[in-house]
Parts: sequence; C-alpha cells; structure tokens
Amino acid sequence: MNLEIFERLESEVRGYIRSFPVVFAKAQGATLTDEEGRQYIDFFAGAGTLNYGHNNPALKRRLLEYIEADGVVHGLDMATVAKKEFLETFERLILRPRGFDYKIQFPGPTGTNAVEAALKLARQLKGRPNVISFTNGFHGVSGGSLAATGNAKFRGAAGMPLANATFMPYDGYLGEGMDTTAYLERVLADRSSGVEAPAAAIVETVQGEGGVNVASFRWLRALEQLCRRHDMLLIVDDIQVGCGRAGTFFSFENAGIAPDIVTLSKSISGFGLPMSLVLMKPQYDIWAPGAHNGTFRGNNLAFVTARSALQQYWATREFEDTIRRKANIMGSCLEHIVRGYPQGRFAARGRGMIQALTAENPELAGRIAARAFEAGLVVETSGSQDQVVKLLPPLTIDEPLLRRGLEILERSAADVLGVSRTEPEKIRFINFRGVR
Amino acid sequence: MNLEIFERLESEVRGYIRSFPVVFAKAQGATLTDEEGRQYIDFFAGAGTLNYGHNNPALKRRLLEYIEADGVVHGLDMATVAKKEFLETFERLILRPRGFDYKIQFPGPTGTNAVEAALKLARQLKGRPNVISFTNGFHGVSGGSLAATGNAKFRGAAGMPLANATFMPYDGYLGEGMDTTAYLERVLADRSSGVEAPAAAIVETVQGEGGVNVASFRWLRALEQLCRRHDMLLIVDDIQVGCGRAGTFFSFENAGIAPDIVTLSKSISGFGLPMSLVLMKPQYDIWAPGAHNGTFRGNNLAFVTARSALQQYWATREFEDTIRRKANIMGSCLEHIVRGYPQGRFAARGRGMIQALTAENPELAGRIAARAFEAGLVVETSGSQDQVVKLLPPLTIDEPLLRRGLEILERSAADVLGVSRTEPEKIRFINFRGVR
Amino acid sequence: MNLEIFERLESEVRGYIRSFPVVFAKAQGATLTDEEGRQYIDFFAGAGTLNYGHNNPALKRRLLEYIEADGVVHGLDMATVAKKEFLETFERLILRPRGFDYKIQFPGPTGTNAVEAALKLARQLKGRPNVISFTNGFHGVSGGSLAATGNAKFRGAAGMPLANATFMPYDGYLGEGMDTTAYLERVLADRSSGVEAPAAAIVETVQGEGGVNVASFRWLRALEQLCRRHDMLLIVDDIQVGCGRAGTFFSFENAGIAPDIVTLSKSISGFGLPMSLVLMKPQYDIWAPGAHNGTFRGNNLAFVTARSALQQYWATREFEDTIRRKANIMGSCLEHIVRGYPQGRFAARGRGMIQALTAENPELAGRIAARAFEAGLVVETSGSQDQVVKLLPPLTIDEPLLRRGLEILERSAADVLGVSRTEPEKIRFINFRGVR
Amino acid sequence: MNLEIFERLESEVRGYIRSFPVVFAKAQGATLTDEEGRQYIDFFAGAGTLNYGHNNPALKRRLLEYIEADGVVHGLDMATVAKKEFLETFERLILRPRGFDYKIQFPGPTGTNAVEAALKLARQLKGRPNVISFTNGFHGVSGGSLAATGNAKFRGAAGMPLANATFMPYDGYLGEGMDTTAYLERVLADRSSGVEAPAAAIVETVQGEGGVNVASFRWLRALEQLCRRHDMLLIVDDIQVGCGRAGTFFSFENAGIAPDIVTLSKSISGFGLPMSLVLMKPQYDIWAPGAHNGTFRGNNLAFVTARSALQQYWATREFEDTIRRKANIMGSCLEHIVRGYPQGRFAARGRGMIQALTAENPELAGRIAARAFEAGLVVETSGSQDQVVKLLPPLTIDEPLLRRGLEILERSAADVLGVSRTEPEKIRFINFRGVR
Repeated sequence: MNLEIFERLESEVRGYIRSFPVVFAKAQGATLTDEEGRQYIDFFAGAGTLNYGHNNPALKRRLLEYIEADGVVHGLDMATVAKKEFLETFERLILRPRGFDYKIQFPGPTGTNAVEAALKLARQLKGRPNVISFTNGFHGVSGGSLAATGNAKFRGAAGMPLANATFMPYDGYLGEGMDTTAYLERVLADRSSGVEAPAAAIVETVQGEGGVNVASFRWLRALEQLCRRHDMLLIVDDIQVGCGRAGTFFSFENAGIAPDIVTLSKSISGFGLPMSLVLMKPQYDIWAPGAHNGTFRGNNLAFVTARSALQQYWATREFEDTIRRKANIMGSCLEHIVRGYPQGRFAARGRGMIQALTAENPELAGRIAARAFEAGLVVETSGSQDQVVKLLPPLTIDEPLLRRGLEILERSAADVLGVSRTEPEKIRFINFRGVR
Repeated sequence: MNLEIFERLESEVRGYIRSFPVVFAKAQGATLTDEEGRQYIDFFAGAGTLNYGHNNPALKRRLLEYIEADGVVHGLDMATVAKKEFLETFERLILRPRGFDYKIQFPGPTGTNAVEAALKLARQLKGRPNVISFTNGFHGVSGGSLAATGNAKFRGAAGMPLANATFMPYDGYLGEGMDTTAYLERVLADRSSGVEAPAAAIVETVQGEGGVNVASFRWLRALEQLCRRHDMLLIVDDIQVGCGRAGTFFSFENAGIAPDIVTLSKSISGFGLPMSLVLMKPQYDIWAPGAHNGTFRGNNLAFVTARSALQQYWATREFEDTIRRKANIMGSCLEHIVRGYPQGRFAARGRGMIQALTAENPELAGRIAARAFEAGLVVETSGSQDQVVKLLPPLTIDEPLLRRGLEILERSAADVLGVSRTEPEKIRFINFRGVR
Repeated sequence: MNLEIFERLESEVRGYIRSFPVVFAKAQGATLTDEEGRQYIDFFAGAGTLNYGHNNPALKRRLLEYIEADGVVHGLDMATVAKKEFLETFERLILRPRGFDYKIQFPGPTGTNAVEAALKLARQLKGRPNVISFTNGFHGVSGGSLAATGNAKFRGAAGMPLANATFMPYDGYLGEGMDTTAYLERVLADRSSGVEAPAAAIVETVQGEGGVNVASFRWLRALEQLCRRHDMLLIVDDIQVGCGRAGTFFSFENAGIAPDIVTLSKSISGFGLPMSLVLMKPQYDIWAPGAHNGTFRGNNLAFVTARSALQQYWATREFEDTIRRKANIMGSCLEHIVRGYPQGRFAARGRGMIQALTAENPELAGRIAARAFEAGLVVETSGSQDQVVKLLPPLTIDEPLLRRGLEILERSAADVLGVSRTEPEKIRFINFRGVR
Repeated sequence: MNLEIFERLESEVRGYIRSFPVVFAKAQGATLTDEEGRQYIDFFAGAGTLNYGHNNPALKRRLLEYIEADGVVHGLDMATVAKKEFLETFERLILRPRGFDYKIQFPGPTGTNAVEAALKLARQLKGRPNVISFTNGFHGVSGGSLAATGNAKFRGAAGMPLANATFMPYDGYLGEGMDTTAYLERVLADRSSGVEAPAAAIVETVQGEGGVNVASFRWLRALEQLCRRHDMLLIVDDIQVGCGRAGTFFSFENAGIAPDIVTLSKSISGFGLPMSLVLMKPQYDIWAPGAHNGTFRGNNLAFVTARSALQQYWATREFEDTIRRKANIMGSCLEHIVRGYPQGRFAARGRGMIQALTAENPELAGRIAARAFEAGLVVETSGSQDQVVKLLPPLTIDEPLLRRGLEILERSAADVLGVSRTEPEKIRFINFRGVR
C-alpha cells in the first residue's frame, strides 16, 4: 500500500493513518474497501459521524438529485430551500415530539464551532467567564473549546495557558461511593473555594474520546438541579453520542433533564458532511445579528442529507428499537469477553451503541485494535492512556455483520492474550439485560 | 417570500438573511435564483468561497461521479484515494511551479480551524504565547482566532477577555506618510515597550472583512524582514484572498515574500464545500501525531472538487490573465463612479477581483447595497462601520455579466444619491492602469 | 468617639474601623488604649503581626538607638549594617539550628510581595504557569497572589478573571474520611483531568483568614511527597502562622517537611513594621539580578527590630515552651465553651496560639466578637462566612491577661446565647491534652 | 568591604548592592556614610523615596517622640490618632489648597499595592478588564501592576503571560512630529482596531524607571480629554515624581488636569518608611468594605513622619521655589555637559528635580555612574538599556552639595570620555531657561 505521498507531504499531525495504514477507496454501509479491494468492517464510523453508515442509499439519492438540479451548495446564512426544509423537518420530527422549543443556530459546520458558540452564549448571558467542565471531557480543539477539553496532548499544543474553565470530577471519577456533584456543590456554595462562579457546566452524557465513561441518569439530574441552584446554564455536548448513538435521538432523553443549550454535529448530516447545530432555549437567544459567523455555516448539501436522515430514521420509534437490540448484542459480547478472558482483566461499559472494552494494562487495548485491523475490523482506542477499545459501529449495521465484527474483536483479544478463543458460538445466544 | 420558519426557529444570530431576505433555491455560475424564480447576479460569491462560481460544471461532474461510485465521503485523517489525488495535484500544480516545499495540514474544514492550527504551531515553535495581529484583521471567531480578530462585535460576543494577541497598525492605518512597520520595529526592538516578544505575525495581504484594505507589496516585504529580525514566523492568512482572488493563486506571489505558514480555505474546495489547509515550511512541522484534530478534517467530497478546480484553472497561467482583465474592468468602473459622483465622496480600492467602493458617510454603503439587491445584484458591505461596498464576483464570471453587475452598482449609487446616472456607456472604454 | 474624618475622607474600603469603632492612641504588650483612655485586651495582634506584643520594650530600645544614631532607614537593596546583622542573626538562630540552608530574598515589605516573588520563582523554575492553591487559602490581594486566594470578596474586586491557579480541597474539606491529597494525586496523574501540570503547590499549614483550618502533619507530608512525584515545588506560606504562632518558629517544623520555598512576613520584624522574606532552597535561586524589585524591600528599621526579636525570643527553646503552655490554656477554655454551651453548637480548633471557636450559625461569631469588644476584648472573625471567632493573642501575653481575655470571650458567648455563664472558675483547672 | 554574607545568604535577585558594593552604616540629609566612614553624596535618594533627605531632623524628632510614648505602631485599618492627624493635615495642606476633594485609600504600604488597588477600582467601575499603559511605563512588579509595566526583564520574571493591559506609545515615542494620543484616539474610535475598550489609562507624567521621559503638559491634557471622550478613567501614577519631585506636590498641577485616581508612595512618608495612598474622586469610591486589604496598610510610624513632612514643607509655597532654583542648577549643569562634551553625544532632559543625562552609546551611562561612585557620588542609571544617568538628589539638598555632586558627575563623564574637564567654573554662572 503506497502511503509515500502522505508521508512526504502531509504534516506529522496526521493520526489515524498511522493506525490504519491503507488507502481507502470506497465505502458502503458498515464496510470500507481499500485501494487493493480488501474489505473492513467499520466499528469506528467516523468517530460517530456515520451513524447511518457510509453512502446511505436513501440519503445519497437525495444528495445526487439536489446537486444535479443545481441546488444552492454554499449559502453562508442566507435562506435557502434546503435549509428551510431541514428546519421544518427538524422541528416536526425531533423538537415537537420531544416537547422542546429550542431555537436553532448554525454556528459553522464542525463540532468545535458549536461548542465555541455555546460557551460564548452562556458567558454573555451570565456575564461570567468561567465554565465548569469535567475530567476526561472532550469538546474540540479550537481555543474556546480546548480550554474545556481535558486531554493534555491537545491542551499542550495550544502553546499558551488556557483559561476560564474549571475541571470537576465526572461521574465515578472519585470511586463508587462518592457523588461528585456533592463536591461541585460544595465548592460552588463556598464563597472561599477559589472556584469562580461559573456561567455554565458543559457535559457529555457519555464521554467518547475520554474513554467511554458513562454518566448515570441520576448524576445528570443532580447536575441539572445544581445548575438551577447556582444560576448556571446546563450545556449538553451531544456531538458524539447524540443522533441516536446512545439509544435515543438526544442522549439525555431518558435522563429526564432539559439542557439549556445542546450542541449537535457529527451524525447530524447523516452522510458524513460537515454540519453542526446549537440548540438553545428561546429565552437565551440573546445573540446580536452576525455576532458569531463562519463561512460554511450554510452547508446546504448537509442540510439535504440531514433532512433525509431524519425522515428515514426518526419518523417513528422503530429505529430506537433496532438500536436497543444491537446494543444488547454488543453488551453481551463484551461481557462474554470480560468473563471469558479473566487474564485480560477487562471491563465493559457503554450506553446504546457506544460501548467499550477496557483493559487494566493500557497497552493491551492498542494491541487488540491493531490485531483487529489485521483481521479486517476498524476499531479505535480512546481514553487518557488509550486504554479503551471503543466500539462505534454504524447504528444501521446489520446484525450478522455486527456479530462478525464482535467475533473479530474477541479473536483479537484472544490472540493478543495468547489464549485460544473460548466458545465463540456462545456469543449469539447469551441473554441480555436490556439496554446498558 | 415566506421567511416565517427562519424567524421563528433560527437564532437571532442570523445575519445575511436580513440583508437578502429571499429564499434562494438554485445557483449556477454567477447567478442565484430564488424560490420565485427571480435571478440575481452574485457579487458576493459566498464571501470569497465561490471563486469558480456556483455548481461549476466540471467540478460538479466529478463530484457526482465520486458519490455515485460510493467513494469515501468522511475519512477523518485516514488515507483515501481522493485525498491522495488532491495532494498529488496540489503539489504538482501549485507548490512545485511556485518553488514552495510546504507541508500540508488538514486542520478541520473551516478557515478558523486553519488559523487555530497555525497559531498553535507558531506558539509551540517559539515557546511564546503572543502573536502580532493587525487593526481590522479578521481571522475567524473561535477562541484562538477571535483573539487575533479586530472587530469589537465579534470580540464582545466572547464574554471573556481575549489574550495573547497584540494589535498593530496595518499598512496605511496611520496615514500616507507613516510606514507602520517602523512602529512595529520600534516596539519589538525596545525591551521596555511592554509588547511581549511575539511568536508570529498573522496578516491578510488584503483585508476582506476589514473593509478591503490593501497592503502594499513593499509593506509586506518590510513585514517579512522584520519577522526575520525578531525571530518571528510570518503567517499569511490567505483564506479570503487566496485561490486567485487577488490575481495569483497565493495572494502574496507578486510581493516576493515566502511566508512560514499559510492558511487556505473558502475557495480551496472550489465548490463551496467546507475545506481548509495549513501550509508550513517543512522545518516547522513539529506537530505531534494527532495533537490537533477535528471530525471533518477529511471532507473527501471537497478533496474531489478541489483537485478538479486545480486541474481546470491552475494548470496554465491563462486563468490569471482573465482575472487581470476582469479586475481592470472592475477598477475602471469604480474609478468612474468615484469621479462621476463627487457628491458621494467615494473612493475605490482593491487588488485583483476583490475591490471596493468606500463612502465617507458610512450609511451610504448600506443603502447602495440594499438598492442593488432590489435591482438584482447581491453585494455585501464590510469594514468597521460597514462603510465599504465589497465586490467579490466569481473569478469565472463572464464579462457581460460582470459589466451588468457593475452597471447595477453604479445605478444604485446614483439612485441613492438622487442624481441621474452619468454616461454609463463610458464604462466599457476607459483605459486601465493595469492590475490594481 | 469622633470618627468623622475617617468617614468623610477615607475610602469605603476601610474595614476593621467598622468592627472596632474607636480611635486607638497607645499600645503596650497585649493592651490597646483608645483616645479616651479605655483599655482593650488584644486577641487580634495585628492579624498575627504582633506576636511579641505592641511596643515590645527590648525591640523598642534598639529601634530608638538606631534612629537616634542616624542609621540608614531606607536602603532599597543596598547593603547596610542593619541588614547584614539581621542576615547573620537569622542564619545563626533560625536557619542553622533547624538544618536549613535557604537563601533569602527581600521581596518588598508585605506578605503579598513575598507570595508574588515565590510564585514567580516557581513558574520560572518549572516553565509552567499553573500553581495549585487550596480552598479557603489566603495569600494576599495583589494580582498574582489574588489568583491563589480563595475568597470571592477579594477575587471579585479584581474586575477581571484571575488565571493560572487551580484550587484543590484543603485537608478536611471533603469530610473526615477523605484524604484530599488522593484527589489531587488523581488529577495530576491523569493526563486527561484538564488540570494543567502545576509548577508548585502553595499552602498554609493553618489557614488563618480562611477560618483557622488546620492541616494535619500527615496531610502535609502527603502533600510534600506528591509534590516530589509530580515535579512541583512546595511553597509554604508561613506569613500568618510562622514566627512562633503555631508553636515553633516555622509552622511546619514538627510536620517533618522541607518546603522548597517559604514566605514570611507579619511578625518577622517583631514590631509591626513592614517586612517580608522569601526563603528558597539554594538550587532554586535562579533569579536574575533585579528581576523582582520594590522600593521598600530594604526597610532597615524592620531589620533592626527583627534581629532584636530573634535574639530575644529564639536563642533558646524556652519561648516555645511558653507558647505551648498558653496554647493549652486557650484550647482548654475553648473546649470548656464548646461543652458548656451546647446550645451554641460550637466547635474549637487551632494549633499553637492560633485558635478558633466556630459556630454553626454564622451570625453568632460576629455577635460574640462585637459583644467582646464592648467588654474590652479585641478579637476578629474569619472564615468564608465570618463564622469563626479567631484568637490570636500576642505570644508574649502574660497568663493572667490571657485568662482574662478568655473569660471575656466566654461571657460574651453566654450573653449572646442569653444564658448565664457556667462555672467560670473551672477554666483555670482543666487538664489539657498538649499542644493542639 | 566585607560583603560575604550578602553573597552567601542573599538571593541572586539583589541588585543595587552590585552597583554600590559597600555596606552603608549611617545617613544624614544628602549624605550616606559607609561602614569604613567614607561619605557619599546621594543623587539617588532611595529612587525618589527620600525627597526630604535621610533622617530629616524635624521628622525624626516626631518619630522618636511617638515611639517613646508607645504610640500605636501597627494598626491594620483601625482608626488611630496618628492616622487621624495625617488625614487632617493632608486634607488641609494638600487637597484643599489645590481644590481636590479626593477620597483616600490606604492600600498597603508600597507603590505596587497602590497601583493594584487603582487598577482594580477602575476595572470594577467600568466593568472592563483592559487598561491602557504606555511604553517604558513602570508601575511595580506584583501581578496586576506588572501587566502595566513595560520592561521585559520584569515581565519575563512572571513566568506566565500578563494580560489586560494594552501598551501605547508615550509622548515622543514616535518622534517629534507625531502626537501619540492621535494614534490612541484612532484605535479607540475604531471598532475594528482589536484594542479592547479600556477602563482606564495609567500614566506617569515623567517616567522615572523608564529613562526620565517627560510628557508635555499639552500631551497630558490631550490624554485627559481622550479619557473623557472614551469613558475611561485617568490614573496618574505619581509614586516617583509626586511629593514635589517634579516641582509641585502633585506632578500634574501645572498641566491643568484632574486625574480620576492618583497613586502616591515613595516620599509620602517623608522618612523612607513604607506608605502609599490611592486618591480617588468621591463618586468613584465604590469599594466594598474590606474588598482590598493588606497587613501593613496602617503603618502608623509613616503616618507620623508623613504629617510632619507636610507641615514642614508644604504649608507655604516656599519649598516649591527652592525646588525650582535647584532644578535650574541641575538643568544648567546638564546642558553644560551636553554642549561641552560633544563626543559623548549626550542629551539632557527632566522636570523639576528629576533630571537625566542620556548617552547615545548605552554603555557610557553605566561607566559614568560607576566612575561617579568611585568619586563619592551615588547615582543610578535607568531606561530600557540603562542608557540614562538619572539624577534624583533630595529636594532638600543644600546648593553647595548639589553643585559638588554635579561637578563629580561632570568629572566622571570627562574621565570616561578620556578628555579633560572643560571650564568647570562656568557651571555656576550659566543662565537658565526656567523650570525644565
């Protein structure tokens, strides 16, 4: 596989090409094909961007029609037919059925644009620069978002101190017994804690990049109540685990909370096209016209596929059922690995179709992912030490392919541990405990 | 024209929809068509994103073929065929002929992503947080870029102080007689000036959002030399005026400078798709793998059209000749307006096909642009007081349409001033002084 | 008592004059006398500045002789006889007997000057801006120190965000069971915690302004070890509880730790004159000549009395014995109040001769202090809600006067609670548990 | 001269001891005496702290009486007789005769404490963090003041970026022809200049540490008007050139401006004792009680000598006459040197009794000062390259001693240049142009 031009011309900053050193040519559904025709099952899905698979046929058809017809492609924030139709559909299929009356901002087409806009809005609203972020949180790497992102690799690249974010322990960070919102409550109530009164807390309900850390619904509710008590906005960053990844359209639906601001990106366009949204309660829409801008905030091709994805998957609750079913398959397999390979000292966790196998020895995860790639499975590691194998198959993957990928994962773990695979046939028949 | 859903659902932050209150449906070349079939000449071109016009046929054909064939759409920074072919073409048609050996970073698909990455890299390289930016500079609105952006409307929206950028007067800011690099030299040489030693200077060769302020080539050379003397990197932000807008592919080619870092975006994809690049001299490529990331940094559809645009327009010098010719038409018309309507106290400026008509009375510009829109011309205002009518037609616009647009502009000026139009036929026959 | 000129001319920022609304004229030992001749027992001692009492006769004699003889009063950091003699004495009586080889900086004559210098030095040494501070810590109110001070009243007065300090829970902050250094260890070891690698931790062994919170020696040792593991300097801010206040010259002597940097001020001059010191391990003395300055860093009158105080009190261990004895009297009395007035829900705490009575109802403390003042006792409140009555008598107070002050305190508590005083004679005969 | 203990024990940060490597023992008026009995004329005066000379007899007598009588020495901000009498005298002799109704804050006893308080107040008042400072300004080295101080030696020692101050060119910085307030006006009026709207401008009327740069009264008036136009406070930092140094009590009296906030320190105590004041227009006294504090803000010995100094020197205008006369002698001598030693390419400047000889070759100044010290004159250098010999004799120096010092200076210049001294007797008879 010839990667010479990448090595010669592309900056050293390139990353995934090092984990998956082939040149991909085509992609369909949950399958990637490289230049030489080799196929891979995709348990990575563009880090959560391809919830509906690669080149989803329904979306693709609409996209082709739109381009053929010379629809407006680039529109800044001018009104276009594509944008109007997206807005109508998003309101009808997503907001109304869930009882939300959010207003919608198109802040630029990437997740970090959305986070930047959300943080600006919160700071403007409250007149306070500080925001609460959480250990292992990831919100993007542009200046404002980066200050709220925990990982030292990204932070260190800034070349300057990052200010106006205070990190607090995420759910579970201080061990089982400790409700970390109690600590946050303590420092916010204490006028001598040194923690500046924050404008907002920004949180992921499941931390994807941070290592698939799952906040309990109870903890999220406690956080929401704490925000109310301390006059802070609650921002849910649903960029990675929204759009169905955690089992419902918004990841927080079953938690019974109502964030003040929500950021969406990654899978919102449905087709892998750059797009992002900021949702805000109407009373918080104090933006001055044009006060946040961005050349590509009107990516109309994305509006077309985004609308199509909503129509295709979110007109009924059926899609959620299929996610639940596949999440159970994933969870069951991971539990099987945890129990079947005690020498790996694995643990499993996740919610919906973002699930993870973690290893006490951080090296193991990387070796399993590398072995899996050799065996035809694209899967990435995450977490502060890359100690977590993160499973993000397309939500639309068919069950046989999902099982095949999980088998490759198990076999890779077995290979890396140097043991023979235990009872692989059992994977299919385990009883699940319901949605994790 | 029904804008109800935008007014009801979209955040107050929306901007251009207020200037151009119609719903656009289709677009081709330099022409936009609204829902009701009305056509507009586009002198806005997506704020410099559509240098090759809307739905450019050559690019469109390649895009459709790629999508039809299930090419990889979303690739993070994995290697793909589309990316490989773009790299090869960019090296062959752009870098090599111009004697550059830049390495290439895909920092996320928007201009502000590129600026963020460029500033991070400079700060890392020099170990110094401060950067020099210039009055009226615009580099984006995410945290890091925003600190280097001059406009108070954007800065104020941050809700917090913005640090680590020092603003210096741009070329001409202190009047004709004063070389503003002399002041910069003074404060950098003076250990007691209070200006922290900077890692870099970031500059636009023509400030688009700032009001079409044009830096002379002499000033740019002085700035480059000053950067060398003070161990600073020179970053040229070519997002708006690169890709041919100023007459050459890079806006600085004729200035005889060699920036250490260059940012490109807007028209680099050629089709209005989100894409951006950071170019850096190879010795400065000290990035750690993955230290800057972004979900959409591998927007493969953009790579396909970007490559096609390079092949179509930059394989020979011919395209530059057409730009020069049209720039002369624009300049000539603007001079005609300046001289023909002395009561407007207008001035004209620009370089290549970014040109501007400025009015002493800032209200005039807005009224002219509004009148022009009624007459079927999309044109925006810029500058700190929106006192500048900014002309950014597609570089590919045909001459009759260009002239038609310029006539609408003149007529709009005349209408706003309440005078009758003076000798419109003269526009075509004035002698030009060469590229402005 | 005529306070008219203060009310008319002095800024609203004035504070203690509101708690003690009389004009003081003279002072001797532990006694203050107001304009009208009324006397007060001083349990405040200049917030820890007058450990040897007001106008200590031995020091006063030397001061008068020095002034009479036209000794140098103001010397910037030029060498003077007074400074030389102070240095010799400090080395001989303080550093050598305790096995320290600190180098000495005169950073300007106030505590906050010392903290500023200490933080600068640590940041320079490690090349990292962040420092760890602790909840309820107080280190001064100039820009650099203020960022490490917890109290929102002081922080809010800055009128800008304060950066580069991360607050962590002090010993006991998360309740009895939780060793807060474990949390600190966790976030420092976790590369994704969002807490920037710090240059140093700055800590008070007993937090005076913060409400007389006492760090256990075990916790201090754990903190020191953590600093070693994470390449951080340990800075002990001994401004309020050094110079014998906590029972030994340095408050940390019995903890068995060796801070990298120590700040001293308040009682170091012994006479209430402005003076401060930064002590640093010799290997950390990387200061460039003159890189930190200050007009009054050579307050020679203070050097004279400082030397005299060392000679008078620290040539033998005897002084420490008297502190221990009086600390026991104080502790015993406070326990008596806690047990004798259960309706007050009081608690007592402290170390050496900084002791406190805390009340669950924060209003109580202020009312007790006010009542005590009426009865002739000057005592202040501290803590984030002023919920703590803080006892700081001169270390040299004689025992009868100490007991008299304690009796006033008890009577004031009784009055405020509306109960009759319980068995006052018992105060004298309680058995103590040793130094608290 | 034995400096061993300083070299062994004192931090490398020590500075002046390197320029004046002797141990000073006594001091009277304008004369310093070292351990070995050698005498030096003092043209340094504690960097402007000893305007009334060392151990001024009148002040000394009052100080001794106060201490003998057990007056309160340390009082935080409690009311004392000494403070009351100072306030009365300051109001009567300084404020009322000059038509000022400033309120007075005691912010801690050093200049940098005063600057910190002044900046906090301005930021609180305007709700804006940015302040304008000027090239070569010096306002202290604690965190807040340091951000407004220009010199890179001090700034670099912070070990972190310093924010929220924007440096603008001081009077004369851009050459004779250019009024630098015009540039400031330009960037403040331009909403796209990138300079955040400031809360205040802080300025020295003569920059002492910055190299004796003198702002014209016209420029100061322009600055004041600009502050009014842009809703900024004008803060005059009169720490070094107030208290008569520039010819009047406040250095700005003859400029006809009325600063909103004034900082005083250095010579305000009159005796070299730490003391400082912040004066603010009454409407700006929005301080919350205790929101800025400091252990030594009630340095009562300083209040005693401060009051005595006011009574002694500022009850009539006579003292100003003597300053003017001596200033003329100084100016005349410096002009004599400039003209008489053209090979030195000297220039002279100053106002009142802060005057300077500058040399084009920065080494010259240091060599002249060193030579002068050998000859018995203490004089320091200042400026960004230490290119300025700064003359700050006590205002009370008698004329013969002043002339003797000036002769030493001239001889030292001659020696360093290797020429013989030209017509020394002429110094006395030159005609002066009036106060410089």
